[in-house]
Amino acid sequence: MASLLEPGSHRAAGVVDDDALVAGMVRVEEAWLRVLGGSGTVEKPVVLDVAEVESGGNPVLPLVRALRAELGEDVHRGLTSQDVLDTAMMLLARDVVTRMTSDLGKLADSLAGLAAAHRQSLMVGRTLTQYAVPVTFGLKAAQWLTGVLDARAAVGAVVLPVQCGGAAGTLALAGELVADPLAAARALADDLGLVAPGIGWHTRRTPVTRLGDALVETCDALGHIAGDVLLLGRPEIAEVREAPSAGRGGSSTMPQKQNPVLSVLVRSAALQAPQLGAQLHVCAADSQDERSPGAWHAEWPALRRLLELALTASSQSAELVAGLEVDTAAMRRRAESAADQLLSERGSVASERESEAAAPDPASYLGSSDALIDVALARWKSRG
Amino acid sequence: MASLLEPGSHRAAGVVDDDALVAGMVRVEEAWLRVLGGSGTVEKPVVLDVAEVESGGNPVLPLVRALRAELGEDVHRGLTSQDVLDTAMMLLARDVVTRMTSDLGKLADSLAGLAAAHRQSLMVGRTLTQYAVPVTFGLKAAQWLTGVLDARAAVGAVVLPVQCGGAAGTLALAGELVADPLAAARALADDLGLVAPGIGWHTRRTPVTRLGDALVETCDALGHIAGDVLLLGRPEIAEVREAPSAGRGGSSTMPQKQNPVLSVLVRSAALQAPQLGAQLHVCAADSQDERSPGAWHAEWPALRRLLELALTASSQSAELVAGLEVDTAAMRRRAESAADQLLSERGSVASERESEAAAPDPASYLGSSDALIDVALARWKSRG
Amino acid sequence: MASLLEPGSHRAAGVVDDDALVAGMVRVEEAWLRVLGGSGTVEKPVVLDVAEVESGGNPVLPLVRALRAELGEDVHRGLTSQDVLDTAMMLLARDVVTRMTSDLGKLADSLAGLAAAHRQSLMVGRTLTQYAVPVTFGLKAAQWLTGVLDARAAVGAVVLPVQCGGAAGTLALAGELVADPLAAARALADDLGLVAPGIGWHTRRTPVTRLGDALVETCDALGHIAGDVLLLGRPEIAEVREAPSAGRGGSSTMPQKQNPVLSVLVRSAALQAPQLGAQLHVCAADSQDERSPGAWHAEWPALRRLLELALTASSQSAELVAGLEVDTAAMRRRAESAADQLLSERGSVASERESEAAAPDPASYLGSSDALIDVALARWKSRG
Amino acid sequence: MASLLEPGSHRAAGVVDDDALVAGMVRVEEAWLRVLGGSGTVEKPVVLDVAEVESGGNPVLPLVRALRAELGEDVHRGLTSQDVLDTAMMLLARDVVTRMTSDLGKLADSLAGLAAAHRQSLMVGRTLTQYAVPVTFGLKAAQWLTGVLDARAAVGAVVLPVQCGGAAGTLALAGELVADPLAAARALADDLGLVAPGIGWHTRRTPVTRLGDALVETCDALGHIAGDVLLLGRPEIAEVREAPSAGRGGSSTMPQKQNPVLSVLVRSAALQAPQLGAQLHVCAADSQDERSPGAWHAEWPALRRLLELALTASSQSAELVAGLEVDTAAMRRRAESAADQLLSERGSVASERESEAAAPDPASYLGSSDALIDVALARWKSRG
Repeated sequence: MASLLEPGSHRAAGVVDDDALVAGMVRVEEAWLRVLGGSGTVEKPVVLDVAEVESGGNPVLPLVRALRAELGEDVHRGLTSQDVLDTAMMLLARDVVTRMTSDLGKLADSLAGLAAAHRQSLMVGRTLTQYAVPVTFGLKAAQWLTGVLDARAAVGAVVLPVQCGGAAGTLALAGELVADPLAAARALADDLGLVAPGIGWHTRRTPVTRLGDALVETCDALGHIAGDVLLLGRPEIAEVREAPSAGRGGSSTMPQKQNPVLSVLVRSAALQAPQLGAQLHVCAADSQDERSPGAWHAEWPALRRLLELALTASSQSAELVAGLEVDTAAMRRRAESAADQLLSERGSVASERESEAAAPDPASYLGSSDALIDVALARWKSRG
Repeated sequence: MASLLEPGSHRAAGVVDDDALVAGMVRVEEAWLRVLGGSGTVEKPVVLDVAEVESGGNPVLPLVRALRAELGEDVHRGLTSQDVLDTAMMLLARDVVTRMTSDLGKLADSLAGLAAAHRQSLMVGRTLTQYAVPVTFGLKAAQWLTGVLDARAAVGAVVLPVQCGGAAGTLALAGELVADPLAAARALADDLGLVAPGIGWHTRRTPVTRLGDALVETCDALGHIAGDVLLLGRPEIAEVREAPSAGRGGSSTMPQKQNPVLSVLVRSAALQAPQLGAQLHVCAADSQDERSPGAWHAEWPALRRLLELALTASSQSAELVAGLEVDTAAMRRRAESAADQLLSERGSVASERESEAAAPDPASYLGSSDALIDVALARWKSRG
Repeated sequence: MASLLEPGSHRAAGVVDDDALVAGMVRVEEAWLRVLGGSGTVEKPVVLDVAEVESGGNPVLPLVRALRAELGEDVHRGLTSQDVLDTAMMLLARDVVTRMTSDLGKLADSLAGLAAAHRQSLMVGRTLTQYAVPVTFGLKAAQWLTGVLDARAAVGAVVLPVQCGGAAGTLALAGELVADPLAAARALADDLGLVAPGIGWHTRRTPVTRLGDALVETCDALGHIAGDVLLLGRPEIAEVREAPSAGRGGSSTMPQKQNPVLSVLVRSAALQAPQLGAQLHVCAADSQDERSPGAWHAEWPALRRLLELALTASSQSAELVAGLEVDTAAMRRRAESAADQLLSERGSVASERESEAAAPDPASYLGSSDALIDVALARWKSRG
Repeated sequence: MASLLEPGSHRAAGVVDDDALVAGMVRVEEAWLRVLGGSGTVEKPVVLDVAEVESGGNPVLPLVRALRAELGEDVHRGLTSQDVLDTAMMLLARDVVTRMTSDLGKLADSLAGLAAAHRQSLMVGRTLTQYAVPVTFGLKAAQWLTGVLDARAAVGAVVLPVQCGGAAGTLALAGELVADPLAAARALADDLGLVAPGIGWHTRRTPVTRLGDALVETCDALGHIAGDVLLLGRPEIAEVREAPSAGRGGSSTMPQKQNPVLSVLVRSAALQAPQLGAQLHVCAADSQDERSPGAWHAEWPALRRLLELALTASSQSAELVAGLEVDTAAMRRRAESAADQLLSERGSVASERESEAAAPDPASYLGSSDALIDVALARWKSRG
């Protein structure tokens, strides 16, 4: 699935592509077979005909035909196709969450390092594009860090349940096959390492929309960092720079040019995620009856793409920040040359106080910058 | 703000309109004045010139001018306009959350009543629009209930912090005015009954996007109910009916017609919320520098509209479900007349078992419906 | 690219996938080589390393390296990567537009046939889910037809220009290579059968957003049809039915079940298209400088997916409507049994007129249904 | 409706607010009364109770009650509420389109002036945030101009039809009242100066979505300009500046600060428009039966807000560009100091040609900039 129009998606290769999906569905069917007291492992490679996927309306029907040919008619008995596909998507989501948590952890560590190292790195604060009052690069890094900690907490709090309801969520056929269908659903969850569903979610899509919201929140936080890096890396500002890397960022026509590729791609991801998250909510809101005619289907590509995008952007961001070059001298030069503007706010107070004019050193007007960095670092240390 | 194009928004009247916003901003400025050791209460009505709102880029500048004329130059000192507007929006959000929690509680109680009362109310289960296996109306109500409990939990978990950072988030000017600016920020939060911010969120919009996501999730759950009511209330199905109310649902041309107005408006809300939530994420992702040039501004109308919409839809849904008429006889008639289809799944098993054909009574094939209702009711009883 | 989570996308196989994209980019580079007075045809299969695609930020850089190794250093000279990728996307779009125009034409012909054949097919009109006044199925088909004619007109009016501006849109390097760079751009357009750009569109994305808007409009029209088919095909209504097809629409657990798969998938497409179109506009609005850092990149997957989705849904809809089964007897029975309600509007007038009660035949109260069908058919005949 | 959270919306005051809507609906009812051969003008101010608006599901029912009390029972006879509301929205849209066309015309004139005046204004070209090759400010203005000409053409091409179908689009009741209902619909269109509908659009929302797409396209073009102005106006770049205006752009805490308010608000509009346009398409795609239960209602606030937003942003943009300050000396200084980078592309060719190194003057490497300006100006002169 790594696509030429989704640069970096090879970082998510094997996690959310069709092969991973088929493997996930097979795992669900094998686990359910065990729950039913049977056994069997799929040995033959499963190849699904895409035309049959359309005929069935989803990939589970051709899959079940293939597995029954190999493992017998008990395969899938008591389940509905949505049980298998929803649960397989949760398995893919779990792998994404695991990898993202690791990437976001590395990213947070890098940002914490920057926040601690740059407590004294004076720079101009910018609001509505204009100079405001002085800040430090450490404080900016602490802001980025806090956003990433928010995102990691959100991703870490995601609950990934199995889907196990049968044709209309009643587990009726399962009730013909096992003594306690709800216990069977819990056993399926245990077997797969997912959360037991309680009541199912065929048309109550909170597990999907909450997962999506956490992924979008992550892309928001990463996009904020990438956007700032792109601004501060403009040649007229040149206060930070994406680390050049062999063969990266070259131009197809300008030999000297070095494009901030990772920042560009992470910002690109942040511009895409909100629409994908909205897609999941549109589908949730349109849920109908016991299983939805279209709203469920519209959810699949958006969820998969959002999983791929958030994982890719997390990996790219960790690499971007780990290699970020910071020019503290350039920051300080600019701040000092703009001292009058940066201090005008304080001056207004000072003058009223009949005191002599405020000292011209912007570094003397950093307010609680250091204490705010401490707040962010304390949360980071607590793995918040 | 209650608008002719937003039917039902009078249910949110006074909560998120311009008057409420001005009152909220005044409360913030008064509270900050107290934190600075001053005092003063605004007595004169505050009227803001919309042209000045544009000139300032936001409503805080004309507000500060008006308040300083009345209460003196210390008003707003140490704050930035975003501190006041963001915090005022959180005050509005708190009122909305309080009222929604009450409405969602009433809605959950009504749904729990339906789930318990209709354990035996046999009806056809429908998937992809076609008959599947039998369910009960109690199970459907339990599904609706679980979605509402998810939403109430999400709304209840929303964290509403003050914004208090000064010009660029460093509290620099506040540091000239008070000994401990972070303590001052906490005092502002205590005074207003909001959460202390720790590090600010001028360009880290998680507090806004999480609020938005919870409101969208709520509209998803309400839209699911309304959509099902609209379907089941179609004259060809006629299994439930929105309670007629004096003067409600009439047609401008057809004397006999009774439109399911509340269901229509709640579904309408559910179709609107996802785009409003996406708007908040687009703004969060585009955050720049210490304060954003446009992304912050684009957030305001979407957040206000989403607050109004979710509150209105919650109130409408509570009324809709409280009055919902359920025709259990019609449900049973349809299920019994479709018994063969509803039991075909089980039949396939039964026959293999060499047993006689499955009993023709769909009520005998409800699987774990009752146990699943118990799951939902247990969560409801635990106020989950 | 045909994916297990995008059922039916095999209908677009080979049109917008990575192979088609590479072939399109190669065509652009070959054509530009001819414009520069050179020649050469790529014989070797071009395989791009996805890691290099990320390093370059887009697939053009590795492509150019591969082509220069085969055809020499003049390849791509004077172009920028965006020239090649944007133009290749327009080539893909042209193929999609061509195929969609054909599918929409067949669909329009089927709908025109239904409109003409069912002038007398009385049925209940439904508004806000309730019975209103009588209509005919022919009028409904005429409404569907008009939406499809709108869409076909929009798709047919799409303008697909080449992109040819060089590094920053000035054609500066091309100016070192050819006498008249604008003439060269026109020659490139002629060679590829695309429209000459005039001034370029590196950061003026109207060609992309207008293409997207036309595709979304198409999905709106198709979704309207599919949604109505799903409603009218519910077993309680059963006035139309998606033609059963060998192996299509089966259930993974219920032997008797027949799901309206095509309608479900087309409705699913209509639920996805608006967010994809919004994505293109978000990117257009965020255009920056001479070439955008992220907004351009975020556009690619949305545009490709929207092309694939609209083409797939057009093909599915043509098949759906061609095989649609219409039960005019069921329509008439329902209308006659609801005659009093359907005629209540007219009755109110009749009674005032002191005339006897309106005739009980709903067929006598069809107003201008026939004339409105004529309006739609006249437009269809004019290929409007 | 001008709201404190929608700065600048006073520029649209009276055009799309509730009073304008009521006036529009009254115009429609009065015109229809004339078409029916009656007469009467509403003299009493119409005040609608918002609670009744909810009861009716839309504002037309209380309006009709009020008008019938004043003008008699013939008011509204033969129409449905959607006829009145849809047509009134088209009347509002016409006023917006008229004013936007004027604002976009002024904006285009200003941009054409900049394009012509700055043919020689050398500046660095920037791609992916980094220096590329030289451009002129005239070329940049020509790009902005072309986007505005696209938008003006799109807005000018919008078709605004009346809606006139009666209860279910058949004009059945109208057929009891007039000889030729379709002629009556045309007469209504003539009376109101709107386009005759042909077949109605109760559930075929192309007139609404095409209007919306044109408004979003406009905001895209304006946002592109505002975004570039914000970037070029950053103090580190300082190549253009939004004209300071008395009392505009001040900070609530920093006396010296001058915020680029108009640019910020226009960019904010561009960040909002895509989601509003998507809302209209979601509603169109969800159209059902003869009139939609919710999809129609969800359309109203998005359409009104988009009309207000696009009109406001057009007016703000015209003012922004008319006063734009351009520092050509700063542009030239930067370009000359970056000459080596800006000419590296050409150098690669020159050296291969064994010629002496390319002249160090970036102004000698502007390619077809002038000719491309001519292309844009020619289109502007042709009122394209």
